[in-house]
Amino acid sequence: MRDRVIGWDVGGANIKAALLAEGVRDPRVVEMPFPLWREPQRLTEVLTAIAGRLGEARTMAVTMTAELADCFRTKREGVGFVVQAFAVAFPEAEARFYGVDGAFHSAAAAVEQPLRVAASNWHASATLVARTHPDAVFVDVGSTTTDIIPIVSGHIEADGRTDTERLVTGELVYTGALRTPLCAMVSSVPIRARRCRVAAEHFAIAADVYRWLERISDADYTCETPDGRGTGRADAGARLARMVCADVETIDAADITGIAEHAARAQARRVASGMRQVLRRLRGRAPTMAVLAGQGSFIARPAAERVGLTVVDLAAQLGADAARVAPAAAVAWLRLAAGESQ
Amino acid sequence: MRDRVIGWDVGGANIKAALLAEGVRDPRVVEMPFPLWREPQRLTEVLTAIAGRLGEARTMAVTMTAELADCFRTKREGVGFVVQAFAVAFPEAEARFYGVDGAFHSAAAAVEQPLRVAASNWHASATLVARTHPDAVFVDVGSTTTDIIPIVSGHIEADGRTDTERLVTGELVYTGALRTPLCAMVSSVPIRARRCRVAAEHFAIAADVYRWLERISDADYTCETPDGRGTGRADAGARLARMVCADVETIDAADITGIAEHAARAQARRVASGMRQVLRRLRGRAPTMAVLAGQGSFIARPAAERVGLTVVDLAAQLGADAARVAPAAAVAWLRLAAGESQ
Repeated sequence: MRDRVIGWDVGGANIKAALLAEGVRDPRVVEMPFPLWREPQRLTEVLTAIAGRLGEARTMAVTMTAELADCFRTKREGVGFVVQAFAVAFPEAEARFYGVDGAFHSAAAAVEQPLRVAASNWHASATLVARTHPDAVFVDVGSTTTDIIPIVSGHIEADGRTDTERLVTGELVYTGALRTPLCAMVSSVPIRARRCRVAAEHFAIAADVYRWLERISDADYTCETPDGRGTGRADAGARLARMVCADVETIDAADITGIAEHAARAQARRVASGMRQVLRRLRGRAPTMAVLAGQGSFIARPAAERVGLTVVDLAAQLGADAARVAPAAAVAWLRLAAGESQ
Repeated sequence: MRDRVIGWDVGGANIKAALLAEGVRDPRVVEMPFPLWREPQRLTEVLTAIAGRLGEARTMAVTMTAELADCFRTKREGVGFVVQAFAVAFPEAEARFYGVDGAFHSAAAAVEQPLRVAASNWHASATLVARTHPDAVFVDVGSTTTDIIPIVSGHIEADGRTDTERLVTGELVYTGALRTPLCAMVSSVPIRARRCRVAAEHFAIAADVYRWLERISDADYTCETPDGRGTGRADAGARLARMVCADVETIDAADITGIAEHAARAQARRVASGMRQVLRRLRGRAPTMAVLAGQGSFIARPAAERVGLTVVDLAAQLGADAARVAPAAAVAWLRLAAGESQ
């Protein structure tokens, strides 16, 4: 049992977990959509259910971004809530919280200094990637956000520590492959050779764009649909049509494809702009390679190519499952490697 | 009873109604937030409750935009649903549906040609305004959307008939004083002299911007808050802070004011861009005056000044209540004026 660790990435909309055991190459992983902001009181129960699917472990190694959810007044309140949920869910296990300082912290220390353990998941993944790719930009496009972390000579050269700082530096671009509202991706789209403003409504999201373009499958569409209808291509298309106050009787499939392709290009440009900002700061020391993880690597790839980076997909290194849940696998691996030393 | 009409503006998030009686100058008005998309089955009950507060009327004169709500697959389905709700709510009354052709239509005709009566509220208000302001741009900034309708020599010179066409022409700008998500207003905001990307989340809305800036009061914040907390200034500020993944412990009031002022300027620019597009098309015939209505006239005013229009506030002409619910008052007035002729 000592050598079994579950790594956790507790987000506001998804929880990812990876069980790692000494001597085993591929982690067992679980990814569960869970809109924490809607029913925070269920967190403990969800943690227990996920652990039940993975098997027992003596140590819980935790990263989180859930503290940002708007059910919490402050990050302090959010971190405290997550720490407490682990204590209740796993009274027998040792919970260790990974910090943006690259160290693990006890529950008491986490609660004491919440900003140290808030939003640390990018640091865990980048630390793992640095071991095999000492000069690279690590790019993790998740369902909701994108991390762009420069690694130079084996060191993480991130300039931002808090999410706010990281939004400023380009290391965090708040755009993702599923949950991003279309009205946050574009302010207008082409429609029959003219420019059409879009509705500022939660009518369609990135998942609808990529479902329509068949970059993702029904099974990949793991978040809620904006209108409560299905995740199929036809329903996704109807949602995209509504973004220009149209419907499937007033515009056709070619129009919808035009909307989706425009939004996809805009999103790749937005990720590329974060990459450019990160690379610009490093000047002569800037890496020339991007290491991609997350379910939105199909967005990161054209963005990386746009800024002239060669591309390595972490899925080839870690396996597809582990690459999708990179921070959870990474934090488990880091804890296992640290052993009893921290 | 014959000379008593209730005018209705049935939106997806708000229902506005105005009772007008012959010989009475000021309509009695009711405005009720009602998120139709969440519980469409309650529409009939809400219509009845509103009419109960206004008093009896033999005629219901109806405009709608509710057909766009995503509980309906198509506008056809949405129009049919609203028409049916009036039949059930007011079996004794005559329901007449105003069309973008400037005429009233029976329930049967509305269902037959749904695109004629869909999203016709702007046409009703502009027709009323044209009687007193034959050369003007009518600008109605509501909770959610903005209509920009040119009136030249007493005629409505709108180029778009459907909402999609109107989004193309600039006659509809999908931005408003309350419900617009902040992430649809701006992609970045200033924070301590640097540019910070914003979270693509429904963390804060336009109402938070204007509540923080004290352009609106608690009582004006009639839509739901994004986090379910209060409409007070402190709660609005906390929501704005979350847009840059911050909280009230990590940024201060001056930072939040910077975010809010930036968003307000961006929104005024967006409204101004619609105005410019509308004016450009009219060339030498373009009006030089803007007539403002709606609860967001404080947004329309700087936008109009930005494009060099003089400003008249409809509130001075119709009274503040009627100006806020301009389409409902207008459609009642138009129906009363039309009498039995249509």
